[in-house]
Amino acid sequence: MEGVFVSNFIDPVKARAKFPERVYVLDTTLRDGEQTPGVCFTLEEKIEIAKRLDELGVDVIEAGFPVNSEEECNTVKTIKREGLKAKVCGLARCVINDIDACIKSEVDRVHIFIATSDIHLKYKLRMDEERALTQALAATEYVKDHGLECEFSCEDATRTPIERLVRFYGSVEERGADVHNVPDTVGVMEPEAMFDLISRLKALLRKPISMHCHNDFGLATANTLAGVKAGASQIHVTVNGLGERAGNASLEQTVTALTAMYGVRTGIKLSLLKEVSKVVERSSMIPLPPNFPIVGNNAFAHEAGIHVHGVLAKAESYEPLTPEMVGQKRRIVMGKHTGKHGVANFVKEKYNLTEEQIAAVVERVRTLAIRKKKITEDDVNAVVDGILGSVPDQEKLLRLDEILVVTGNKITPTASVQLIHNSQRRVAAGIGTGPVDALSKAIQSALGEEIRLLNYKLEAISGGTDSLCTVEVMTEDREGRTAMGLAVGGDIVMASANALMESLNRIYSKREKDCQQNKQIK
Amino acid sequence: MEGVFVSNFIDPVKARAKFPERVYVLDTTLRDGEQTPGVCFTLEEKIEIAKRLDELGVDVIEAGFPVNSEEECNTVKTIKREGLKAKVCGLARCVINDIDACIKSEVDRVHIFIATSDIHLKYKLRMDEERALTQALAATEYVKDHGLECEFSCEDATRTPIERLVRFYGSVEERGADVHNVPDTVGVMEPEAMFDLISRLKALLRKPISMHCHNDFGLATANTLAGVKAGASQIHVTVNGLGERAGNASLEQTVTALTAMYGVRTGIKLSLLKEVSKVVERSSMIPLPPNFPIVGNNAFAHEAGIHVHGVLAKAESYEPLTPEMVGQKRRIVMGKHTGKHGVANFVKEKYNLTEEQIAAVVERVRTLAIRKKKITEDDVNAVVDGILGSVPDQEKLLRLDEILVVTGNKITPTASVQLIHNSQRRVAAGIGTGPVDALSKAIQSALGEEIRLLNYKLEAISGGTDSLCTVEVMTEDREGRTAMGLAVGGDIVMASANALMESLNRIYSKREKDCQQNKQIK
Repeated sequence: MEGVFVSNFIDPVKARAKFPERVYVLDTTLRDGEQTPGVCFTLEEKIEIAKRLDELGVDVIEAGFPVNSEEECNTVKTIKREGLKAKVCGLARCVINDIDACIKSEVDRVHIFIATSDIHLKYKLRMDEERALTQALAATEYVKDHGLECEFSCEDATRTPIERLVRFYGSVEERGADVHNVPDTVGVMEPEAMFDLISRLKALLRKPISMHCHNDFGLATANTLAGVKAGASQIHVTVNGLGERAGNASLEQTVTALTAMYGVRTGIKLSLLKEVSKVVERSSMIPLPPNFPIVGNNAFAHEAGIHVHGVLAKAESYEPLTPEMVGQKRRIVMGKHTGKHGVANFVKEKYNLTEEQIAAVVERVRTLAIRKKKITEDDVNAVVDGILGSVPDQEKLLRLDEILVVTGNKITPTASVQLIHNSQRRVAAGIGTGPVDALSKAIQSALGEEIRLLNYKLEAISGGTDSLCTVEVMTEDREGRTAMGLAVGGDIVMASANALMESLNRIYSKREKDCQQNKQIK
Repeated sequence: MEGVFVSNFIDPVKARAKFPERVYVLDTTLRDGEQTPGVCFTLEEKIEIAKRLDELGVDVIEAGFPVNSEEECNTVKTIKREGLKAKVCGLARCVINDIDACIKSEVDRVHIFIATSDIHLKYKLRMDEERALTQALAATEYVKDHGLECEFSCEDATRTPIERLVRFYGSVEERGADVHNVPDTVGVMEPEAMFDLISRLKALLRKPISMHCHNDFGLATANTLAGVKAGASQIHVTVNGLGERAGNASLEQTVTALTAMYGVRTGIKLSLLKEVSKVVERSSMIPLPPNFPIVGNNAFAHEAGIHVHGVLAKAESYEPLTPEMVGQKRRIVMGKHTGKHGVANFVKEKYNLTEEQIAAVVERVRTLAIRKKKITEDDVNAVVDGILGSVPDQEKLLRLDEILVVTGNKITPTASVQLIHNSQRRVAAGIGTGPVDALSKAIQSALGEEIRLLNYKLEAISGGTDSLCTVEVMTEDREGRTAMGLAVGGDIVMASANALMESLNRIYSKREKDCQQNKQIK
């Protein structure tokens, strides 16, 4: 495959594997992914993620657990009504009430599950195998009677005796179940054992087999691939490997490995992976670690210094595939081996600067390096931005003329601002829970309108109290216009002010354009 | 194995695997881990990490690449002179100069490498196979002539033809090489292929085989385990899976899987894993993602709500091993399914509070929940701490009486403070690059002494401008006493002030104790 530089030792493995013709991808970011402790998507975020997954080429979207709440049920219905190409699936226990909630949310497929391992039967369900089977069969029939696709899971399948698994999957198949999902609920499997298990099930069942692996020992990707090698033709995955505990198998890793290592076909457009990963990172507020495979910021990063010229000359020396394949970019990063020369080269390759500007960047980076332990690419970019200036001042509708913020232990955090809006000076003060909050209130008061702050994110600062910090905000005006603002600086409060101002300028400029369009229509 | 609840399907796999009697762990956090873009350890940090790895039971510490610089060479020597139980290893190309640097740094073992794949030979080394082999043999002899252990790597082994691998490893073995390391340099292997490759090498070589896997497709753990199944008896790993690009195989994942899944013996004390992971997280400044297997904060976390009572009753229903085995704790986390009742239960289980205090916590959390998108366990803990008070005021040597911080766009960030130290009032002002920096300067000036700020970490804030934030600082006085301080609050500046004061109080109290001891000696 072009742009792929994997090992030739994989060829014989490919030759003896029992790969299906195509692997179907069921994404459960919105269901199992949302069960990540601390993660909670809003309706808008869920719709946005569902649309992105659809664009990406996911075959089935598990959109939620409709019986959870009226709200969850409506969310799933709203996603279904978006008219996506992907099928929409809802989760249900083997209970009429749960399935009814799925039916009400208009899903294409109901994913029913019941636990079958001894420990789950005894301590969680407190029922015997017979009763569990009766429930499973009744649930399957109920789903099929309503004309819906039925996917069936033995929860904790990998700690269930094989005879019992065959009995459950075989029986629901007779009642019309369409897909057999095999969940490694607690992530307790390893690849060879998974290959053996799926091979045995595959030999006895007629309907497609699906994988659902958790990452408790770091083996979710390998276990999922092992199942596909044995003939499983559907995989459950989540974006960024979100999910309970150590998460589920990552969509990025499993699909890229299937495509690039084994040449197995899926419907996924790999080049959109990075973008979708970013959207989910933002909504989940779980930062993706830099060393996350495929979509992490370091996945195609190389430290500026000795080897970089080699990498640039023949990238596959140190890359398993071209970054563009998965929507990534190669990054050259500053590190302990990067001298003055390295910084200059980095800046030259990336920006179109004069010799004088380059010298100024190197000088400022050098000063920064004395104070900071490590200089990242972002620090250098921030310095370059500072030297180049970001948006020309004359284009700004709103300008921050004066700002003063006071806080302490015996006073209420207070801010005063003077803004210039269309040559008019606007002055106001505000108080808040802290200096940044006070500032945001003062700016809103000066503008005479309420601006909703959808998100405020301050990048973790490490190092000294004089480190640079990055502030990212997302604001929304009353008519629903939203805009992002980003600022970098050594002063937390001022960086917050600048980020807010940048986003407000974007909103005001959108508003101006909308105004002009309305005039033209009239 | 007690406390382990993995799948029975693994038993036949274990029975047919060719596991070695014991697996030796070579940790390369200080070498390959430091090549993570943006990571740079100080000498002190390297010594601290080496000591922790030694306590953990690592067999070999790859401490650096001594030829890199005089400093690196000295660092490796300093670590060697710590007198650890673990062997110390240095990396070297197959070049006399590199090996001399290793010898100078007094290592026990030299890890020499030379690239053997077509692409690396042609584009990186620009030499043919014969010349590479000549260099490899000369380097092996040179290491052995100096009485040191020699570990040899074919770089990019997994993209090298098997005949060439056999030729290189076989020839260096004849010259006395002690360990054959097989690096999957670009992370392009999969487990079955790795099992086959190591089986073939194992059949032809007499000396121990070592695994070195990268995680580009998320398969580093599985590939390492596959190699061990085929008889490899040493594994290269890093703490937190640090390393170039997507990182190396993680120590935590590989060793826990070997122990808990396969019952293979290593020298690692699993119960120290979480602690060592934290030390490396802090020094590398690469935050560990919450869903990192084994040592991540979510690895044993369960969302308070429907299922939590089940988990508490019989934890193995949803846990592959007991958290204590790997130095972890079970965490119950607030989430979308956690109501008032859930918060109260959580607080009751964790703290010994009166009914009134519980009501106060629930009330404050409820208020917080209106403003914040998600309430984490930490938020609740912060609220409880606030209600209980952290350290009693009367025990504090230093007290912050008054503090005022001003910043803006037309003034220099300025702070004034009034501290009480042993009933004496001390007043001072300071300026800085931002409000927090000014504050730190003012406090130092009031104390009349310089306090080194070793680390300042502000936890990423997400949500509104009124979110809670966590500030962690580490300070050091002139005599080398260090202390941490932690504070949580809605005001970034005040949280920083409180964290600084907490760490200073700890330093002052240590100083007082030292003083009293000195008096007793006299």
